[in-house]
Amino acid sequence: MILSLVFNQKGRLFPYNIWFNVVFVSESITKYKNEVVNGEKIIDLNSYAHWVPNDLVKFLHEHEKAFDKLKEVAEDPRNESYPLNKVHLLPPIKRPDKILGIGLNYVDYCDENKLSYPKEPIVFSKFASTIIGPYDKIKYPTCSKAVDWEVELVVIMGKVARNVKAEEAFNYVFGYTATQDLTAKDWMTRNGGQFLLCKNMDHFCPLGPYIVTKDELSDPHNVNIRTWVNGDLKQNGNTRNLIFKIDKLIEHLSSVMTLLPGDIICTGTPAGVGSTRNPPEFLKPGDVLETEVEGVGRLKNVVIDSY
Amino acid sequence: MILSLVFNQKGRLFPYNIWFNVVFVSESITKYKNEVVNGEKIIDLNSYAHWVPNDLVKFLHEHEKAFDKLKEVAEDPRNESYPLNKVHLLPPIKRPDKILGIGLNYVDYCDENKLSYPKEPIVFSKFASTIIGPYDKIKYPTCSKAVDWEVELVVIMGKVARNVKAEEAFNYVFGYTATQDLTAKDWMTRNGGQFLLCKNMDHFCPLGPYIVTKDELSDPHNVNIRTWVNGDLKQNGNTRNLIFKIDKLIEHLSSVMTLLPGDIICTGTPAGVGSTRNPPEFLKPGDVLETEVEGVGRLKNVVIDSY
Repeated sequence: MILSLVFNQKGRLFPYNIWFNVVFVSESITKYKNEVVNGEKIIDLNSYAHWVPNDLVKFLHEHEKAFDKLKEVAEDPRNESYPLNKVHLLPPIKRPDKILGIGLNYVDYCDENKLSYPKEPIVFSKFASTIIGPYDKIKYPTCSKAVDWEVELVVIMGKVARNVKAEEAFNYVFGYTATQDLTAKDWMTRNGGQFLLCKNMDHFCPLGPYIVTKDELSDPHNVNIRTWVNGDLKQNGNTRNLIFKIDKLIEHLSSVMTLLPGDIICTGTPAGVGSTRNPPEFLKPGDVLETEVEGVGRLKNVVIDSY
Repeated sequence: MILSLVFNQKGRLFPYNIWFNVVFVSESITKYKNEVVNGEKIIDLNSYAHWVPNDLVKFLHEHEKAFDKLKEVAEDPRNESYPLNKVHLLPPIKRPDKILGIGLNYVDYCDENKLSYPKEPIVFSKFASTIIGPYDKIKYPTCSKAVDWEVELVVIMGKVARNVKAEEAFNYVFGYTATQDLTAKDWMTRNGGQFLLCKNMDHFCPLGPYIVTKDELSDPHNVNIRTWVNGDLKQNGNTRNLIFKIDKLIEHLSSVMTLLPGDIICTGTPAGVGSTRNPPEFLKPGDVLETEVEGVGRLKNVVIDSY
């Protein structure tokens, strides 16, 4: 099942003034062809189920009860559907409590950077306000000249998780999505070596295009993830090269803090980032950044001038 | 003006089922005697102004319009008030987008730790879910044996701030509160040197007891801040020793990211933390931790066993 929050362009598709809705994309992800398929249908769930919260974090707090009902509404052929290409996709989740990022978590990334593999996960964070939608523009920050791409598979937590063992970890996962963990490499060694600022400039977390439920990825540890800049393939990795796998990450994180429904874990990026190229390459205004996680979909974000 | 969110103990003070309210404490902070004064009155604003959002972040997004009305309601003698000591004070703010912490930001802290003064602010973050109320219990984390105290003056942002100059910075401040920026010192050198985990165990951000509006602190750079453990004075600092003052912090932070209404800046801690004592001292279950920021009030949090 594919879930997303869709922005109803006011007055265009819907006669009433609801701007945010949880929608259900009725076709299976298996038909998803690496871009938003024109003609794919969406259903405005709020028209048929007013109880559906218009916030995915709230929805996840109660999804176990709500999910089947939601599916029924979405699959009822009497309910009116709209073409997906007529709506502007919002980020599929907007105000999680946590966005957790994992540094140096791919074998090929560490090898390329000549770094030894970390002995335990290196965890940093992003603020929810850095999230933008899968086709939104990235405004280049005024304070950096070295914004780099980092494609990542993203885990969305579905349940409260505290001291969860690796063997049980996937029971706490709701689904997956994709991100670019954008990073200002010229700030990476500033701020006393703390990653916070280099990871948290505005627009630094494009997310989407959907959240797929966990059943859609039969093996999340064998998924191709890729970045293109202006059509050139820059990163071409696979989650099999993760150093700390998803279950181990959840065990580690939940031993330190309670994970909440809607919390996001960005699992790390493979080789091919701009800063390790010779000469180094960074994003610039005008660039078209495309991001793909196999089984989830593709984001397309255009970089525009700073403000 | 003193603002807080008060938890109405269900069925005890109010006949209806509202659990969270914005309340107005009608007495001036100048009468505040370093503890919650028995007999201090609170007014349940939602009874008289249903439009008041029960979330301070939402309130701040519209407070410029709402604030005067709110004051009128609170000061109307016809409106019923309740004794403050009959309610359980929640944290005054619960879901900010950002909790920004500043490391090594006191002259006396750096001197005591034999560290040179940083050349620019060192910024880390805490998750909103670490916030607990001013009299809530702190559950000792299972994963640490070295939880340390760090009293701090906290700034609450009132307006969207982007590229704000220091001279204009206080126009963007809503008010102040107090915190203990609790830190697991045994995790400070783990996690690849990133502070995230050592700062983000559950319950690591006691906050309150109130937010005072900025007019209540005539000079936020001359405020005594103190920590007691089991009645022993451990930290006794003054914000005049801040290395980066509030206006400079806002300039720096807003040059990197957009600050939002409700965002929290924990400005740093003075000398006297447990880890620099000889021998080092840390919190343990049973300890009573008291935290005071002059002009804001005093928190009292009891440490209890891990779970």
